[in-house]
Amino acid sequence: MAKITARSPLAPEAFPDLPVIRGVRFASAAAGVRYAGRTDVMLAHLAPGSVVAGTFTRSATRSAPVLDCEAKIGGESDDGAAIIVNSGNSNAFTGRSGIEATQAVTGAVARALGLPEARVFSSSTGVIGEPLPWQRIVARIDDLAAALDEGGIDGAAQAIMTTDTFPKGAAATVHVNGGDVTIAGIAKGSGMIAPDMATMLVYVFTDAAIARADLQAMVSRATDRTFNCITVDSDTSTSDTLLMGATGASGVAVGPEDTAFAQALEDVFRDLAQQVVKDGEGATKFVTVAVTGAASDADARTHALSIANSPLVKTAIAGEDPNWGRIVMAIGKSGAAADRDRLTIRFGDVVVAERGWVAETYREEMGAAQMKRPEITIGVDLGLGDGRATIWTCDLTHGYISINADYRS
Amino acid sequence: MAKITARSPLAPEAFPDLPVIRGVRFASAAAGVRYAGRTDVMLAHLAPGSVVAGTFTRSATRSAPVLDCEAKIGGESDDGAAIIVNSGNSNAFTGRSGIEATQAVTGAVARALGLPEARVFSSSTGVIGEPLPWQRIVARIDDLAAALDEGGIDGAAQAIMTTDTFPKGAAATVHVNGGDVTIAGIAKGSGMIAPDMATMLVYVFTDAAIARADLQAMVSRATDRTFNCITVDSDTSTSDTLLMGATGASGVAVGPEDTAFAQALEDVFRDLAQQVVKDGEGATKFVTVAVTGAASDADARTHALSIANSPLVKTAIAGEDPNWGRIVMAIGKSGAAADRDRLTIRFGDVVVAERGWVAETYREEMGAAQMKRPEITIGVDLGLGDGRATIWTCDLTHGYISINADYRS
Repeated sequence: MAKITARSPLAPEAFPDLPVIRGVRFASAAAGVRYAGRTDVMLAHLAPGSVVAGTFTRSATRSAPVLDCEAKIGGESDDGAAIIVNSGNSNAFTGRSGIEATQAVTGAVARALGLPEARVFSSSTGVIGEPLPWQRIVARIDDLAAALDEGGIDGAAQAIMTTDTFPKGAAATVHVNGGDVTIAGIAKGSGMIAPDMATMLVYVFTDAAIARADLQAMVSRATDRTFNCITVDSDTSTSDTLLMGATGASGVAVGPEDTAFAQALEDVFRDLAQQVVKDGEGATKFVTVAVTGAASDADARTHALSIANSPLVKTAIAGEDPNWGRIVMAIGKSGAAADRDRLTIRFGDVVVAERGWVAETYREEMGAAQMKRPEITIGVDLGLGDGRATIWTCDLTHGYISINADYRS
Repeated sequence: MAKITARSPLAPEAFPDLPVIRGVRFASAAAGVRYAGRTDVMLAHLAPGSVVAGTFTRSATRSAPVLDCEAKIGGESDDGAAIIVNSGNSNAFTGRSGIEATQAVTGAVARALGLPEARVFSSSTGVIGEPLPWQRIVARIDDLAAALDEGGIDGAAQAIMTTDTFPKGAAATVHVNGGDVTIAGIAKGSGMIAPDMATMLVYVFTDAAIARADLQAMVSRATDRTFNCITVDSDTSTSDTLLMGATGASGVAVGPEDTAFAQALEDVFRDLAQQVVKDGEGATKFVTVAVTGAASDADARTHALSIANSPLVKTAIAGEDPNWGRIVMAIGKSGAAADRDRLTIRFGDVVVAERGWVAETYREEMGAAQMKRPEITIGVDLGLGDGRATIWTCDLTHGYISINADYRS
């Protein structure tokens, strides 16, 4: 394993002071799945009456826990629910033993908390292709159940980390229908994929009272606009999982017409998503790629991802090089509609290129000054239509190579 | 500009002894387009009666010389033809001035050699977005025309290099229809894109007598099976150009039924394509990704490119890490059909994974031994159908980051 010693230069100053979500309790423990000297399992319990929604990786080789979650999500139940997560081993590409391991862990949680197995969701993140030492996790379930605490979310955020250099949390409170509801979430991820296939996991909770189908619709929409708009290295994991639980403990009912709640939810998702990018492997720059004027939103997204995933664009940013030619290249190769002579390219508010050539007002030092910032915006207007998309990414540095190549597994 | 000091460890021992192609003459010169102390322009002249075929980048932001070639290719003519190439400046994204510069250069060649302008093809490779100093090239045209020589192909291979660490040449002689015909070609490229957008250029010549349409069909087919099967960094250039001229000087007629000729042509193309990969920026490993058993050839190609372009697969190879989990990941994310439990993965002849899990016979040291080789084959069988594809690529190393990030333009 690579040693990750330094905290990302893009990390927030401190972990946020997350509010308690009534009806959700957390516990974490050191089970020794793979790491020594740190917590690596977290358990969350949601009170009876809670609903759970989720979104999952579309990888054709997704892990056993993801397949198990997909089979369970969407069921209605008045029972409580639980989420059990381990780091250190992803239980992916583990054949028949992977399914058995997932069932052993979720079964143990169900027995300890008096829940149906169908209400216990699990995630695993870490090395791929090695059998999950599920006995080590099961051995800690009773302790975890006994330690459940409304204030335990900070420890949970720590326990799910793999090569993350900082734990990730975000929260919002929104006034809706005469009452206050609160949202709090945690995430892990250091790149879309970190070494050994550790990947992105997100758990978000609210005390709003909301129908499961409505929650799922909000979660899916917000995921598309946040987590599905980030990329570190274009590599999609076998384990990506987002689960959201709503306990109803606030007594405030929320429905699809409550756009303030949906907006607050999206804000929390976006905050967590951007923290994942800021902890991207080796990242030294946070980059917003904003594409407008495309023939369609889908075309805008294709262009934005082509720019954000281009190794040459990402290495230019790492070198603080305002190399707009590489952006032209990435637009050209994307496959979506583009007209060279209608393109406008901006770094921040500096117009770099327009009408098929470098802008008359542009000077190299203007672009160079933009590139020195820790947070950079690349703006592209295609001049073709109303399609728009925004993607968040980071640069590609020696740090990424060191983390992913400079060791033997 | 990055300093490229070391010859690629994957370079051939020496430039091959290329045979003379009767009817083609070459010259090269130092015009000072961007580089000092080296040649940077090459001129090739094809005798009257020659036919010319070509394939070009499909980038939506392709360069002025590419657009000019596309407009000219396909015309029939009894005149001779010429190819003029400069390195140091790609004349891409240069607006109206780019077209004027291309016309100035091709026009000067046409006048010097007594050719119609429609028979003068050009390429430019190097920095993007800066006006081509065409006057410096035009100033050398008369000297180039006077120096044309049948033995000048070695100098031509040198003059078209940008960040290449070695010149690239390949040749074949094939007995067909009672006579011998010869094929010889040169290429440049150090990655699909080298720093500052220098890109892949290929020029191949034969003394076979062949109809233009037949030559174009063979060139297109061979390109699909060779140059379109390589990737260094997934970044597609704005300047990729392949031109092939047939002089007929051998007096041997070749048609579409002459599969030996088509095969020799493909062999020369593949040799040059693999040399480009072996000179990939920072490359230390040459990797063949061979996918079989896919639902279709297109699916096989999608999987093979997903593996070959994955930063995590490429960094694992750089680290000599037999990290087959990342190959599972790349298959899972590709979007093409895959069944986790039917997958077989091999390193060389070592079966690593099968039936959804690590192979019972596999030991880590077997994979590690494969990874130590300079040339590595990753074999994937999907177990779904007869689709197959092979892609050639290289690893992703600190050298790539150094070349592309560790300098300011």
